[in-house]
Amino acid sequence: MLAVAGAEEYAAELPRPLVIQLPSLTEAEAEARCASWRVAGEANNLAPWSAVPAECAAHVRRYVTGPAYRSDLELVAREASAYARALAASGADRAADAWVFDVDETLLSNLPYYADHGYGLELFDHREFDRWVEKGEAPAIPSSLRLYKEVRDLGFKTFLLTGRSEGHQGVTVDNLKKQGFHDWDRLILRAAADRTKTATAYKSEKRKEMEAEGYKILGNSGDQWSDLLGYSMSARSFKLPNPMYYIP
Amino acid sequence: MLAVAGAEEYAAELPRPLVIQLPSLTEAEAEARCASWRVAGEANNLAPWSAVPAECAAHVRRYVTGPAYRSDLELVAREASAYARALAASGADRAADAWVFDVDETLLSNLPYYADHGYGLELFDHREFDRWVEKGEAPAIPSSLRLYKEVRDLGFKTFLLTGRSEGHQGVTVDNLKKQGFHDWDRLILRAAADRTKTATAYKSEKRKEMEAEGYKILGNSGDQWSDLLGYSMSARSFKLPNPMYYIP
Repeated sequence: MLAVAGAEEYAAELPRPLVIQLPSLTEAEAEARCASWRVAGEANNLAPWSAVPAECAAHVRRYVTGPAYRSDLELVAREASAYARALAASGADRAADAWVFDVDETLLSNLPYYADHGYGLELFDHREFDRWVEKGEAPAIPSSLRLYKEVRDLGFKTFLLTGRSEGHQGVTVDNLKKQGFHDWDRLILRAAADRTKTATAYKSEKRKEMEAEGYKILGNSGDQWSDLLGYSMSARSFKLPNPMYYIP
Repeated sequence: MLAVAGAEEYAAELPRPLVIQLPSLTEAEAEARCASWRVAGEANNLAPWSAVPAECAAHVRRYVTGPAYRSDLELVAREASAYARALAASGADRAADAWVFDVDETLLSNLPYYADHGYGLELFDHREFDRWVEKGEAPAIPSSLRLYKEVRDLGFKTFLLTGRSEGHQGVTVDNLKKQGFHDWDRLILRAAADRTKTATAYKSEKRKEMEAEGYKILGNSGDQWSDLLGYSMSARSFKLPNPMYYIP
């Protein structure tokens, strides 16, 4: 049989004394299952989903409000930064080198909104979320802001490619600038004609247009697999964590 | 600022009393960083790596010998199973439907080998590993065995596509059968001519050959991104966890 732990090894993994310190094994098992669900999402193993499973609501809340989310965001930014620096050091003609950034949960965080809506436990409410977006108060994700500035400073063209609608252009520009994001080369919002497309299709089309203009998409940062997959994919993609919602 | 936790919120996340029960914050931070590293690998965010980072050796050992690895494996198998059943229920002509399985760390586990070699902390030693393979004693991953049988029973053609060399055909067949894997349609091992190719290139070529024969690759299960990416990709891929080694 496989040498992964049965119940007896599992007990051996826990700090002692067992009884007082820890949640019941059932709770521990639920926690393991929710961590598995979250990691499966990051590995793109899940079927499309519309809300966080009820039994994982507490896990997701703890994750996004605790140190693990920040740690995960920071590690992905560091990997992206190392890759960007290696490219910049190559010395070749880099005028066409481009990096694509998604906006929500990539450059800006909507955690204050999701804190009021069960961190993904509630079904997504477009109107409510639009009201939040229109406040223009989404904070920067610090590790993404550092990466954004570095990528700019290294000479990459920076394209912000968001599923937000064109009607939110003004508030999005203001929100980004207020949070320290400046000097992007292009901010692409979703036109009315793109509204019925999946994010994967819409974003692939926009990346293809960039390539047709001669840009080489070398990096792409996004919290959804639909930011990264499809066609005209980036040479390398960076999947930021997001267990709160799924966009096809 | 982003509403993810600073040090004060972090302390609030921990069960109390803090001092006696838990490792120092430094150890907790190291644990968070190693979990981030592991999850980043699952999300394909890492640059190629040749060994587990020394500071994460204990984390990886605990993960693969504890309940989290088993839980992650089981969840991925359940997702794959649900997808396979949905496809089988479609009722269309399914004679060409195929599922590709990798072997090592997908159908069979080499944990007994890696237990003797630091769970990925040591650099990979081809000769030592070959000696282990030639014993033919790799146990089945239970959730993968269940998925394999179900996929077979649902009528998919099953192609086992492994980076093992053709010289290991006999021992691999024996090992698989001894562990309960039977009736695959094809076992594809790496020929001498394929030895210098990356796994991504070799496996893409073999998938392309399947397609050229008329098969529709609908599912692909593998523990390496190089099992899943490249060209002639499966309609849906299932990334099994593996923080012990990376194959390009």
